[in-house]
Amino acid sequence: MSSFGTVLLTGAAGKIGLRLRQYLRPRIRLRSTDILSLDPPQDGEETMCCDLSDPVAARSVIAGVDAIVHMAGIPREASIEQIASANLIATYNVFAAAHAAGVKRIVFGSTNHVVGFYPVEQSVDASALPRPDTLYGASKVFGEAVARLFWDKHGVESVCIRIGSALDKPTNLRQISTWVSYRDLAELVWRSLVTPRVGATIAYGVSAGSRGWWNNSAAGHLGFIAKDNADTFATEITEQLGGEAHGPAVAFQGGPWAADGYDAT
Amino acid sequence: MSSFGTVLLTGAAGKIGLRLRQYLRPRIRLRSTDILSLDPPQDGEETMCCDLSDPVAARSVIAGVDAIVHMAGIPREASIEQIASANLIATYNVFAAAHAAGVKRIVFGSTNHVVGFYPVEQSVDASALPRPDTLYGASKVFGEAVARLFWDKHGVESVCIRIGSALDKPTNLRQISTWVSYRDLAELVWRSLVTPRVGATIAYGVSAGSRGWWNNSAAGHLGFIAKDNADTFATEITEQLGGEAHGPAVAFQGGPWAADGYDAT
Amino acid sequence: MSSFGTVLLTGAAGKIGLRLRQYLRPRIRLRSTDILSLDPPQDGEETMCCDLSDPVAARSVIAGVDAIVHMAGIPREASIEQIASANLIATYNVFAAAHAAGVKRIVFGSTNHVVGFYPVEQSVDASALPRPDTLYGASKVFGEAVARLFWDKHGVESVCIRIGSALDKPTNLRQISTWVSYRDLAELVWRSLVTPRVGATIAYGVSAGSRGWWNNSAAGHLGFIAKDNADTFATEITEQLGGEAHGPAVAFQGGPWAADGYDAT
Amino acid sequence: MSSFGTVLLTGAAGKIGLRLRQYLRPRIRLRSTDILSLDPPQDGEETMCCDLSDPVAARSVIAGVDAIVHMAGIPREASIEQIASANLIATYNVFAAAHAAGVKRIVFGSTNHVVGFYPVEQSVDASALPRPDTLYGASKVFGEAVARLFWDKHGVESVCIRIGSALDKPTNLRQISTWVSYRDLAELVWRSLVTPRVGATIAYGVSAGSRGWWNNSAAGHLGFIAKDNADTFATEITEQLGGEAHGPAVAFQGGPWAADGYDAT
Amino acid sequence: MSSFGTVLLTGAAGKIGLRLRQYLRPRIRLRSTDILSLDPPQDGEETMCCDLSDPVAARSVIAGVDAIVHMAGIPREASIEQIASANLIATYNVFAAAHAAGVKRIVFGSTNHVVGFYPVEQSVDASALPRPDTLYGASKVFGEAVARLFWDKHGVESVCIRIGSALDKPTNLRQISTWVSYRDLAELVWRSLVTPRVGATIAYGVSAGSRGWWNNSAAGHLGFIAKDNADTFATEITEQLGGEAHGPAVAFQGGPWAADGYDAT
Amino acid sequence: MSSFGTVLLTGAAGKIGLRLRQYLRPRIRLRSTDILSLDPPQDGEETMCCDLSDPVAARSVIAGVDAIVHMAGIPREASIEQIASANLIATYNVFAAAHAAGVKRIVFGSTNHVVGFYPVEQSVDASALPRPDTLYGASKVFGEAVARLFWDKHGVESVCIRIGSALDKPTNLRQISTWVSYRDLAELVWRSLVTPRVGATIAYGVSAGSRGWWNNSAAGHLGFIAKDNADTFATEITEQLGGEAHGPAVAFQGGPWAADGYDAT
Repeated sequence: MSSFGTVLLTGAAGKIGLRLRQYLRPRIRLRSTDILSLDPPQDGEETMCCDLSDPVAARSVIAGVDAIVHMAGIPREASIEQIASANLIATYNVFAAAHAAGVKRIVFGSTNHVVGFYPVEQSVDASALPRPDTLYGASKVFGEAVARLFWDKHGVESVCIRIGSALDKPTNLRQISTWVSYRDLAELVWRSLVTPRVGATIAYGVSAGSRGWWNNSAAGHLGFIAKDNADTFATEITEQLGGEAHGPAVAFQGGPWAADGYDAT
Repeated sequence: MSSFGTVLLTGAAGKIGLRLRQYLRPRIRLRSTDILSLDPPQDGEETMCCDLSDPVAARSVIAGVDAIVHMAGIPREASIEQIASANLIATYNVFAAAHAAGVKRIVFGSTNHVVGFYPVEQSVDASALPRPDTLYGASKVFGEAVARLFWDKHGVESVCIRIGSALDKPTNLRQISTWVSYRDLAELVWRSLVTPRVGATIAYGVSAGSRGWWNNSAAGHLGFIAKDNADTFATEITEQLGGEAHGPAVAFQGGPWAADGYDAT
Repeated sequence: MSSFGTVLLTGAAGKIGLRLRQYLRPRIRLRSTDILSLDPPQDGEETMCCDLSDPVAARSVIAGVDAIVHMAGIPREASIEQIASANLIATYNVFAAAHAAGVKRIVFGSTNHVVGFYPVEQSVDASALPRPDTLYGASKVFGEAVARLFWDKHGVESVCIRIGSALDKPTNLRQISTWVSYRDLAELVWRSLVTPRVGATIAYGVSAGSRGWWNNSAAGHLGFIAKDNADTFATEITEQLGGEAHGPAVAFQGGPWAADGYDAT
Repeated sequence: MSSFGTVLLTGAAGKIGLRLRQYLRPRIRLRSTDILSLDPPQDGEETMCCDLSDPVAARSVIAGVDAIVHMAGIPREASIEQIASANLIATYNVFAAAHAAGVKRIVFGSTNHVVGFYPVEQSVDASALPRPDTLYGASKVFGEAVARLFWDKHGVESVCIRIGSALDKPTNLRQISTWVSYRDLAELVWRSLVTPRVGATIAYGVSAGSRGWWNNSAAGHLGFIAKDNADTFATEITEQLGGEAHGPAVAFQGGPWAADGYDAT
Repeated sequence: MSSFGTVLLTGAAGKIGLRLRQYLRPRIRLRSTDILSLDPPQDGEETMCCDLSDPVAARSVIAGVDAIVHMAGIPREASIEQIASANLIATYNVFAAAHAAGVKRIVFGSTNHVVGFYPVEQSVDASALPRPDTLYGASKVFGEAVARLFWDKHGVESVCIRIGSALDKPTNLRQISTWVSYRDLAELVWRSLVTPRVGATIAYGVSAGSRGWWNNSAAGHLGFIAKDNADTFATEITEQLGGEAHGPAVAFQGGPWAADGYDAT
Repeated sequence: MSSFGTVLLTGAAGKIGLRLRQYLRPRIRLRSTDILSLDPPQDGEETMCCDLSDPVAARSVIAGVDAIVHMAGIPREASIEQIASANLIATYNVFAAAHAAGVKRIVFGSTNHVVGFYPVEQSVDASALPRPDTLYGASKVFGEAVARLFWDKHGVESVCIRIGSALDKPTNLRQISTWVSYRDLAELVWRSLVTPRVGATIAYGVSAGSRGWWNNSAAGHLGFIAKDNADTFATEITEQLGGEAHGPAVAFQGGPWAADGYDAT
């Protein structure tokens, strides 16, 4: 049993949230929440429905927990109104309520799309300036800035995980570079919870592989070791290739997200 | 007469907006807008009232302009609801409407409070990772990320000016390091408008002075030369010093903004 | 079958060219060329004799290919007249003819001797300024500059491989740090051809080993993984050591190339 | 009288050579040479005609001098054959003959076009990797590599001056950033000759001005202070502006050199 | 048999010295010395008692050796008088006597406590400025400065090994990041002796493990590969965790050394 | 009157101490101390004789002061015994006694000789690793490490001033790059005392001049502006030049200090 009593998981009904719920449940006391309805709680778990864009609701769901895994939010491009509510306001509410409640550790589900406009031939680490590829990506830049603010001002520790392509397996060339298996992501979340001191860490959530773009050296203290390797799936994908075009979807790390609406020349 | 036909100035009723309105009016055709009522237009100027958090209104006020000086927004700490509307959503709306209308240059009023948690003994330039000192500062981190996104994806150029302490003159020790005179700020805005190419530039809006903290070398192509120097006012302020305490207001560049609510230890 | 129709291999009669010819032939349609006579073509291959210092000949041999592996050139110190013809002019001709013919990818055989005057105790990556150890090395600095020029100006992608000591096995202490096996080099060439996007990449052509000097992190997107490891051969060589002297051959990465003619102090 | 006995000036009939001849003549014993015919020698000067692409001629003209100012070469884009002879081979010959003759200091006329493909909004210093905008620029990358080689291997000191726009005055917007007056350039050459130790220095040859792109901090030991300032001419040029287009001539530091033949996207 | 005839081991009676004595004895001729009495010499070994703070004694014990492994010194916090004698003066004496005797290689037992005040979430390499956590740590900063001085001025090569936690196995969380097994440390000492050229190298003495803080890339030329991995012991230790506090012992790499006497806030 | 009540000046009988005594006396209450006898105290001053290598004496002389300007120490190369007593032990005693007495600010007289082995053609700032040119220089590396330790561990602020050539005027070529006038040095000490927050700052004590080697950007917050400029004296010195040799005295920033005893190659 780890040192954390109860962990709150937000976004527990989402694609990633579901896997984290399964992974975390045997290890800690878990409080799972989502704006959508959740499967019934299992042993050692409680579930709550909550709209985190409401600060009162956020405070309520956070009461009594020791740490938070904040995965809630719209995980794709959306209108500014939707993004403002679900990603900007909700994330701020989570940090503010956590601070008010004395919670000292938050794992935040950020995204590789905060650096989606770096070219694929450039390795990127945690010191790279944000170059989001979407409004969605920009909303995560805001979330990371809020995380840093609460560490600098209030001593609330955080790990911002820039999640790659969370999938069962990579299914195209870009994902050979960006894939993270569910179990690797869950392990990284776990390391982010149990590492004694994290300050305000930025980590890339990515499995192993020879073609990765992201340098995780700034997160070495977490002791995360990927168990899965994208190279395992490389051969079959390469053989399907054929006629890869030169355009923003190939040139930039954000891939189709960077290409969507692209007209920069 | 410069190469720009009409420039839109948002936040024209604000403290800085008022000065920019005076400065820009003789130089270009100006459209001044604010959510508050404005003084009557003068020669070569039109005025419009506009709530930029409404995307339709944003598109309307932007129609027909060639460049935008976006100074609108809440210039201090506020609730997440206020910040979301006036700083997050409104700024996104301005960039989105500008892109839709074919506007190719935006000067964005950012703030030194995006780096307010750097210690005062550390020089900071445009490559420093954001360390905002307030939710307000974090909202400007978002605005800068949006600016970068519209450059990378849509070729909309921008200069994000991290404005220091815009005042008639510095009135305390921190402002000796952060002061920007209104005419220097206006000149920097002007250089941001007329420089042939700016890409996505980040500039510090600060007058000259031997105790400055901000390295503006990444904005050298703008050719901005401050006319005013904070050192002029240094002697009288130092003499008032007496018993400066060691705490966050002295230790961090954000000064009282960083100290407000500080409990990091 | 990869996405490339036909690949031109220059320098196909050379020590490295011979191995690449064998490696590439089963994988793509190959056109092999050299200024020297070549072995007869095999299945899926055509051969041409060509002096690349003649721009007309260069255009002729490049007609109809989709990518080029440019290994031709004098691979050792030589007079300026020889170097100018075989390395400077010929390389420029290859890039110019490739651009004229619409070829979009060139793999260029550069050399570790472009950084041969870095001390052996300093790790070097692709961002190190050139410090060639010979006129030969300087000629490859020129070739890399041409590669960058054709990418920046014409969109011709390239991978400049700074080849280490291409040998069956390392035979002295320096080669424990610089050795590249033929199959590792061929695999790196292959990755340089099939990676969807490379821009203007600089890669070190070196096998694995604990004593390597070259940091290949700027070429990580190629996904190259060395299969051979110089450490395998380390023990026997160390035992032959005896009385290594302190001089330029030991002090600089270029080894005997740096020492040849050395009189700097 | 300085410590140098006789200085050889190559390219003495060129636009810059003429001015240097005037500047240097009163200060040292001067040997002026060019492939073209020269005005008659004046007091304290001798003149020689020499084709430096001929190594015998190079050795002959260098015999007996103490330092060299090597300005010869084609100063614009040209064919590879012309560039090879006048810039590549001739420059190598100068360094090789200087070393053979025991000359210990060479000032080399390089060009800003070795970094002509950096965007104008990016400040560039001596540690930037080469991004030439022309074959001409690439030939100067080679020359700088040769200079470094002769320092590392033979202890021949050099200052490579990346000359900006050497003109009587700036005549367009780009030249506001790149202009070097003849007297500033001559002063920089002089400082390069008399500074006690220079190793292998890279310096930008540029006058003062608020819109410069080049950071000369790596050449601070030369003690060069520009007397002329491009800002003096800024106002009249800006007023001519009107309708600056967005294209490679505006986007890249090389200006029209970068744009000439540009088809990268 | 390696190229070194006789190696002097200082501090041979200490915890680490004892293990090095065992490791080195079969490989080279060894002279073991300590201020304390030593076990009787074994085959191929001689022993001497020596107070290295006495320069005459230092010269005497160094006479006739080819290289030195200098591990003597107080390995913990102590008074300035003790540190001055055993760590400051003695280390200087060793380098000065080695130079006088023509010894060309010294392996110096430095400590991770020269960087003990870096936060644990920050990876540190050899280019980090010293931030010692104790007077003991500061004394090793001095030792490293002396090593650099003797390389720069006298050509005496050195490897300063910043030894982590040398133990049979890690016994607490911090040691999971800092542990070095005795055999790994001995192997690193060995590599430091036999690598042909080391200049003035700084290396971290640490075994493998996923949670390490120290980046050894500046010592890659030594070819050191750790055989032991702290992760092997990670599970049992984590389970003992329970209630790790936030304080200097957790926040800083020096752990309890940084915390001892800490009153910075 | 500044915010400091009483300032202790150590080394007050030395060349620099004498000038500081004159400068500080009118501005603050001054306690002047030296191991040598001092001129009689003047108005607002008390004098004490003290051997700072005695910790009891150090505590005694520090009792009751608010800040310390620690200039005591041997200012030239000396034996390890002398350096240990006067520079190593005494400096530690000053910091330890200051901490014990609650003193929160120390200005430490360090030296440019901590970086004396950097080549003169390389600009050096506060982030450069130490490369002392003498045991004296290494002793100041130790002093700076102690300063950092007391800041990190105990919150004692310090400014380490790497003093250049403190003289009435520069008298040779090296001093054109290293000269600091007494009044500039005194002004820098003053700024180090009155700047509200300094943390652990490293500053170069050097006057203005176009040929300086040291980049003081890490000390910009001090607001120090040199009033004197070495260029004023440059012409006469250059004319004396004649035949500067290539050797360590010219090649390294430490000049004759680096050359004294040099036998590195």
